[in-house]
Order: sequence, then structure tokens, then C-alpha cells
Amino acid sequence: MTDKRILIAGGDMRQIYCAERLSAKYDITLAGWDKELVPDGLGIVPYGEYDCLLLPVPPLAENGSISTPCFSGTLVPDELKGLLAPEAVILAGKYDKRLSSYFPDNAVVDYMEREELSLNNAVPTAEGAVQIALEELPVTLSGSKVLIAGMGRIGTALAEILKGFGTEIHTAVRNPNGAAKARIHGIKAVTANTMDSDYTVVFNTVPDMIFTRERLSRMSTATLFIDLASKPGGIDFNSAAELGIKTIWALGLPGRTAPVTAGEMIAETVELIIAERSIEHD
Amino acid sequence: MTDKRILIAGGDMRQIYCAERLSAKYDITLAGWDKELVPDGLGIVPYGEYDCLLLPVPPLAENGSISTPCFSGTLVPDELKGLLAPEAVILAGKYDKRLSSYFPDNAVVDYMEREELSLNNAVPTAEGAVQIALEELPVTLSGSKVLIAGMGRIGTALAEILKGFGTEIHTAVRNPNGAAKARIHGIKAVTANTMDSDYTVVFNTVPDMIFTRERLSRMSTATLFIDLASKPGGIDFNSAAELGIKTIWALGLPGRTAPVTAGEMIAETVELIIAERSIEHD
Amino acid sequence: MTDKRILIAGGDMRQIYCAERLSAKYDITLAGWDKELVPDGLGIVPYGEYDCLLLPVPPLAENGSISTPCFSGTLVPDELKGLLAPEAVILAGKYDKRLSSYFPDNAVVDYMEREELSLNNAVPTAEGAVQIALEELPVTLSGSKVLIAGMGRIGTALAEILKGFGTEIHTAVRNPNGAAKARIHGIKAVTANTMDSDYTVVFNTVPDMIFTRERLSRMSTATLFIDLASKPGGIDFNSAAELGIKTIWALGLPGRTAPVTAGEMIAETVELIIAERSIEHD
Amino acid sequence: MTDKRILIAGGDMRQIYCAERLSAKYDITLAGWDKELVPDGLGIVPYGEYDCLLLPVPPLAENGSISTPCFSGTLVPDELKGLLAPEAVILAGKYDKRLSSYFPDNAVVDYMEREELSLNNAVPTAEGAVQIALEELPVTLSGSKVLIAGMGRIGTALAEILKGFGTEIHTAVRNPNGAAKARIHGIKAVTANTMDSDYTVVFNTVPDMIFTRERLSRMSTATLFIDLASKPGGIDFNSAAELGIKTIWALGLPGRTAPVTAGEMIAETVELIIAERSIEHD
Repeated sequence: MTDKRILIAGGDMRQIYCAERLSAKYDITLAGWDKELVPDGLGIVPYGEYDCLLLPVPPLAENGSISTPCFSGTLVPDELKGLLAPEAVILAGKYDKRLSSYFPDNAVVDYMEREELSLNNAVPTAEGAVQIALEELPVTLSGSKVLIAGMGRIGTALAEILKGFGTEIHTAVRNPNGAAKARIHGIKAVTANTMDSDYTVVFNTVPDMIFTRERLSRMSTATLFIDLASKPGGIDFNSAAELGIKTIWALGLPGRTAPVTAGEMIAETVELIIAERSIEHD
Repeated sequence: MTDKRILIAGGDMRQIYCAERLSAKYDITLAGWDKELVPDGLGIVPYGEYDCLLLPVPPLAENGSISTPCFSGTLVPDELKGLLAPEAVILAGKYDKRLSSYFPDNAVVDYMEREELSLNNAVPTAEGAVQIALEELPVTLSGSKVLIAGMGRIGTALAEILKGFGTEIHTAVRNPNGAAKARIHGIKAVTANTMDSDYTVVFNTVPDMIFTRERLSRMSTATLFIDLASKPGGIDFNSAAELGIKTIWALGLPGRTAPVTAGEMIAETVELIIAERSIEHD
Repeated sequence: MTDKRILIAGGDMRQIYCAERLSAKYDITLAGWDKELVPDGLGIVPYGEYDCLLLPVPPLAENGSISTPCFSGTLVPDELKGLLAPEAVILAGKYDKRLSSYFPDNAVVDYMEREELSLNNAVPTAEGAVQIALEELPVTLSGSKVLIAGMGRIGTALAEILKGFGTEIHTAVRNPNGAAKARIHGIKAVTANTMDSDYTVVFNTVPDMIFTRERLSRMSTATLFIDLASKPGGIDFNSAAELGIKTIWALGLPGRTAPVTAGEMIAETVELIIAERSIEHD
Repeated sequence: MTDKRILIAGGDMRQIYCAERLSAKYDITLAGWDKELVPDGLGIVPYGEYDCLLLPVPPLAENGSISTPCFSGTLVPDELKGLLAPEAVILAGKYDKRLSSYFPDNAVVDYMEREELSLNNAVPTAEGAVQIALEELPVTLSGSKVLIAGMGRIGTALAEILKGFGTEIHTAVRNPNGAAKARIHGIKAVTANTMDSDYTVVFNTVPDMIFTRERLSRMSTATLFIDLASKPGGIDFNSAAELGIKTIWALGLPGRTAPVTAGEMIAETVELIIAERSIEHD
């Protein structure tokens, strides 16, 4: 237990699980939550000054209030301001430039940009993607042929899972490094030119326009496309719809499919950020 | 294409996919189906004499009519009788002694009892079980600890899939042969006495009362139990409920999670049965 | 510790590791070993009467003496006879009918025939086979195409290992049950008619003449054949030699590649046999 | 086939396999090889001017001549000079500053430094490391506990292979990113402080002094250490010897364990370098 005090404002169930884990080490208070949703043992009455304000993913609603999907009231940044210690740090689950004007005297850190959290989130993202495939497909993944576009962290995590299903896995790569990474993972690499047209599922993990109308028109209309790339995604969704190809744009999977794990991963990163800042300041 | 003629009566979507596959080789007619659910190209007007009557899983409703969940009318065995050739064989998706009295002159074969279909069905069953786990758990399978009771075909298929998730897998075995099978699959074997109490999920595949009240009471109430064993199952469900342990009894997974694959597997077995009987009779 | 006394006669290093493990539970003496090869703590001076005589794999040399590759002298069955209790059981690592005439009053059990030992031995056998492939091949197993004939215990253990290498695995099966077993393990099944001709390695695990001259002549001469089946093996070795195909007949791998593990597996089975016989006799 | 001409001088069997692959696309001549070791179809009489000189790994012997382990004569750089076109590029399997003085007018490229070749080489390196473990260990990898220090390309390739063996895998990481990478691959991460002391094998892939005397003295003396890191390695070999710990420093595995694959990987990279330089120069 350190003497750090953290105010966790708004958010979904991830923040509760995050709070529970952080409470083993810090003094935690929740704000922007309906009382009955907060487990016993977590404080909900703010008092004194906090060293850290933890905001959710994303931190702010369109109207500028804190994102509070589990609160029947409203929570605006001004209500929180007076609760912060002079050197308090704001941890936000996505950068939002309004934060700098709301909290001009505080450092703002986007924890979702942290390398270890991005890597960690690949696991629940991949599991959520596989869950969608299992739910949507009328065939087994065993014996199916699947294309994964991109061998980054999410593509790698997906490939690892799909190996267990006995799925034939191709990965679309764009250069010899990608092909070599596929080899290390024991997976067949294809390029945009050598990819097949009859995949059962295509998982896209690349945030570039990979699946253009022209490429989509060469694929089977029976293929299910699951896009895991953040905006703008990597599939031409309009063209897919016109071609009769089913697409699912699956964003925010960690919070939806594994909120406990996702919350604990946020907590892990919060701990790291606090530890690093303490060393710097000492 | 042989000259065999098959009448497929009743059943769910599996029978449609089964029919589509069989139609590449045999003359197929469907009965007990609403017209609009039947894809073009499959006949629905019975005529002449059929060499084989394919009944669904299970074949009969409680009232003795054919099981026809996709038919707004009723289909009784007597309507089918006149359509069968003298030596016609009845293939039923479960043995029902009423069939012998309805069709006294015909051989009745329970295709679900066939070894290759039982083995094949292990794959969609295991995938369906993993889908349930992904849907139910608020944590990732990665890093979870799972117990599989039984290293038969379903337990093996499950273990293969879960390996890909990076799940810690224990298998509960009852003798040294089970332990050796676990070793071949690279999995840790435990016994009823050495199993842990804190599994995230327990999958039961053994159709014996493995998880008695006494054993359940030694497990964490946070554990999810998924029972894949056919009646009477392997979990004391009443005791589990009283102890506050969540249980899911997941029966008939192949048809629910992968009807195309499950239907094609039935077709594969139907082809085998017909081929074997042709050789015998020639 | 029970009061059972076991005399371990002859054998290779496996018997030493077996003895070390058994000595935790039983009173052990070694015979037919050069003194300097026996670790401290294991007795080498027989005395009194033994409840069990453990003979090696195989138990007897051609001339009828005990198989003693690690002994500069000779040990004949008659020397051991007087050391056995009236009800003593002889455990032999292969049945040899001469044993019944040498020890007419004792039960003889072939421990290598035990189901759990056969299953357990599949693991060191498969690892030894992979070691041979790694040593012999000038290419990586990653990206190679391999055929495994037979999906029994050794074939399954091999497939599990090769999956990790990113090898493309085909398994040659002889019936739909074999194909379904392959599906459960996520492996592609082929038949004698659909197998390819350009495998990097073929592992045979079936003790029948699978690879006849006719079949060998359809395979690439660059393929390495590794036969793991006991006599008479499953490859026509003479034809292979004439065709210029390299073959390796790898017998007795557990003792050669993992003597500690193999010895401990024998000990495990000895314990089981003794426990079962004790229950019967009590 | 392009009109490029490549002179391949010296080297081991890798260069032959490399030459064979390159000969499908370029005009190839070998120099610094005993005639009888060169397969038919590869030229050995240099003529005209070459666009590219491919030197081996490493390129030069200590005395400054070309590294020619398969040549009974000697080949000095001066002999090659006159054979090079004015713009010819020198591809060397390791940077050596003497090359710039020998060939002052030519660009020198170290192909072993190329990202895709480093990635590709991870596969034969990992397979070679597993081969050593199989050869050295008296126990099976199945059921063993193994530590991999470093989750870079070689560590990842190793982990993928060992998973198939049913080995319990720990990976020693130095920061939260390493732990997250381990999670993506489904492997348990430990730190220098939380690692166990009883590993069957430790594979080091980190070219820093990881296993100091102090750390080695906390490990079991039964552990086998295999160091895959290039000079200076990551193990205090002297201390290990004094502590009675067996170490193997395994360098240059790709050429030793899979010369065909390693040679083809070099060819792949040579093709890439030539293609990239052609685009630049066009």
C-alpha cells in the first residue's frame, strides 16, 4: 500500500474491475457510478485531494461531460477539478484535446497508447474475434480456411488461437519481413496477389484500406469479414454491402468480451505509469 | 451418381445441408418441411419407391409422429410407409423402439451410434463448448485454468482447441491409461483427489456422476461448469444450484453451433452405411 | 515404503533409473551390473528372498542368460532362482517362452504389453523420431510436408510435436474412423490413394506392410522414411534400397533417447502391477 | 531470368544451395570450390564481368583470403577484382572492414544484417537448438520445464516448437512489454527474480550477460544451458564450469542443421537486395 490516492471517474465495468485491483495498493474512490453498481469495499464519497484522476475509454462524452454509462446523473470535469492535488496526473483512455483546457495545470497521459497495454489488449481482442466467428459461422473452424491480414500483435494472437482449432491459416503480408514473421509462427504467408478467393473468414487487423472494392470483388461472397482495425478500418464496407459480402466491424472487444481481464490490464498499466512517474519525481 | 433414392423426412437445418451434400450422389426428396425453407434444387414431391428413409435426430416426437420442427403440418410414419421399397433401410438419428413397430419389415440403423460420426461430432461439440465459455466468462481463456473431465474424443478435441488459447489445462483422469493419454497430448493429468479447487471453467465429458455434491462443495463457487455429457450428465445440478455454482448443460451442440458441418457429417455417414450395405447385399 | 523386495537383474541404464525410482518405495537390489556403474545408495548384494524379479527389455540373451549389457560377467537364470520367494512374480520386458521353463513356479508378466506403458512410451518414441528427422534432414521441419502413417498413440504423439514446428502434416488413414481421429487433432487425412508423392519425411507407425514396392515407387526418392513399427515394420526395406530411397528403422527409441524417462515409466508400471497383484491377493 | 551475373566465392554448403536457387534467375558462377563438390549445372569457370560478388559467412579468413572451407586451394580478393563490373556490389555474410580496402570502388552490403534474413534464420536456429536439447537430455522434453530468456524472434520460434512437445515453458522477460508478448503467445512470463531454479533446460537468446555467476549459483546444477546468443553470449561460461553446470554455446546453427534451408534463405535475401538496388538505380 502506498499513500497514493486515485479518483476513478465514469466508465464501464472495466473500471470497476480496475478499481478492485488497484484498491489492493492505493486509496481508491469511484465517482460517476450509480451506488448500487459499485461493489462493497470501494469508496464512493470523494474527499481530500487525489494524486491521480483515472478517466475511462473514451474519457469524455460528446457534450464534454465525463463518459458515465453506468451513472444516472451527469458528471462534469469542473466537479472533479477541486478534488485534485496540485501535481495530480490525469490518466485518460484516449487522448482528447478538451482535457488540456479542462485541466490546464495537470499532465494528461493516454494510457491506451502504452505499448504494454496495446500488446495485452491483443489477447482479449483476438478471443472476442474468435467468439464472433464461432457465433456467426454455420461451419466449424476446424477444417476451415482463414485469412488474417497483418501479423502484428492482434494477428499473431489470433493465429495462435486458430492453430488449436485445426484451421488452415493464411496470413496476408506486405513484405518479406511479414513473410518471415509468419514462418516463425509456422503459418503460410500470402500476398494480395497470391491470396485465395474462398476463405471462410477473413480477419483484418490492419488500419489501412486493404480490402478495396476491387479486392473484395475477387473474394467469395460466402466469406465473412471481421474487421478488428480501429477507424477507419481496413475494409470498404459500402462496397462489401453492395457485393453481398457480410462484414462485422468489431471494435472495443476487450471491454465487451472480457471486462475483468481488460479492467485488470488497465490497472496493471496504471500501476506502471504511477511507478514510473514516482521514480522521475523522486 | 448411383441409382439409390433417399427420402429425408423431418429434422432441422442439418437435414437440409445433409440433403444438399447427398444430392450430389443420390436422388433426394425432402418431406416434412415447409416449402419456403427448402433450397431450390431439392425435391419435395415424393414419388415412386425409396431405398432409404433418413429420419432426424431424434427421429420421433413424443406423440409418435416424425420430428418436424421446420414443418407447419404433421407427418406420421404411416404416410411414409407406402413410399418405401421392400428392402428399404430406415436411418434414424437415435434408436427408438417404436420404429420397429411402425416399419416392421425394414432394417433400422441408428446412425448416431456410428463410431466415425461420434468421433466427427466431437469437433463441433468442442467448438460449441468453447463458444459458450467465451460468451459466459468475463475473463480471457488465455491465462485461465481449466479442468477437462475425461480424455475421450470430446475431451481430446477440447484440449487441442484450448491449447491455442494459452489456457492452463488439467484433465481429470481415472486411471494410468488416462494419465498416459494426457501425456501424449502434452496435458497435465490430475485425479479426483489431486484436482485443484479454483478452475475458471470445468468441462465435463464423462456420462457418469463425476461432480457429486461432495466434490462440488470443494470447488470455488466462481467456477463455471459446462456439462457436455449426454443424459444423465456428470454433474449433480441440484447440488450445484444450492451451492451457488453456475452450470450449463450443453446438449446437441453440433446442430446448434455448426449445422452445415454437422449436416455434412451425417451425409458422410449415410454414404458409408449405404456403401457398406451395398457390398453386403451384392 | 512397503515391505516388498525387488531384485532387478541385468538391463541398460533404464533399469538404473527405474531402480532409483522404485527404491523410494521398495527394498531394491541390482544384479548383473558392474559395480562402478551402479549409483551409491542402490544395493548390489542380493540376500534373502525377493517378491519380485524385474528382468530387462528383452529379458534374455540368445544363449538363455539374462540380458546384461552393463555387466562384464554372465548372469544365468539359475543363479536367481534361489533368491525368489515362493510366490515371487517375474516381470519381463517382453514375453519369452524360455522364462516359463526357467521359472516354472512363478507367474511371468510382460510389462511392455501393459496399456499404460505402451501409451507412455509413445512420447519418447515420438521425440526420438523427431530427433532423427532433425539430424538427418538438410532442411527445416518448418515448411516441410510430412506424412504420418497411422493415428494410434505414436502417430498422435508425433503429430502433436510436429504441429509446433509448423510442419504441414498429412496422416494416412485406412478408414473413416482414422479420418475422424485426424479431424479431432486438426490434421489432414489422406488415404493410400490420395497421398502426395513429395513428402520430406514419412513416419510409419503401422506394423503392417504399408509401404510396398509399388507404393514406394510412386514416392519421391528424396523422401526420408523413418519406420517406428516393431518387426516386421511397415516398409519394404529391400525395395526402398533398390529404388534409392533412404530408410531408417528406428527401434527401441525410448531407451536410447530418454533413458531416465523410459526407466521411470517402467518403474511406474512395476508399481501398478505390484499394487494390482497385492489387491488381488489380499 | 534477368541478365544479372553473380559470382559466388567460397563458403560452405549453404552457398551451393543458395547458388542452385539463384541459378533459376541469374547467371551464376562459383569460385573457391573444389570441382567435385559442385553439382552439375553450376558454372565454375569465371568469365566476363559480374554484377554481384557473393561472399560467405564470414567473408574473409583471418589471413585476409576468402573463406573457402570447401576448396583445397586459396582464393584472395585480388583474383576476384578483375572479374567485377564497375558498379558491382559485394554481398558479404558479415561486415569486415578489410573489404572496403580490398574493393574500394564497390558498395559492400552485409546481408546477414537484413531484417528478413535475421527473422528467417530464427527458424533453423530454433530447430537446431531443440535438436541439441533432444540429443543431450536423458529425459523427454514432454513434461520438462524449460526457461527461454528473451522473447525476440529466436525465443518466439523456440516457444512455438516447444509448445508441441508439451513442455512447460517459462520465458524470462525484463519489462511489461516482454510479459505482454509472452501472453500473446500463451506462455508464462517470469523475471530474473521470480524464475524457478529447477529448469531442465535454459535457452538463452539475449546477447547480454543474463546468467551471471550470482544467478547461475541459484540454479540447479542439473540444468543444461544452451546459449544461442552471438558473442559475447549471455552466460558466464567460466562460472558455470566452476559450478559444475553444463553449457553449450551453439553458434551458426542454421548452416549446420539445415544448410539447404539456410542457403535458400540467403538466396531469397540476395534476390531482394538485387531487386531493391535495381529499382533505386533505374
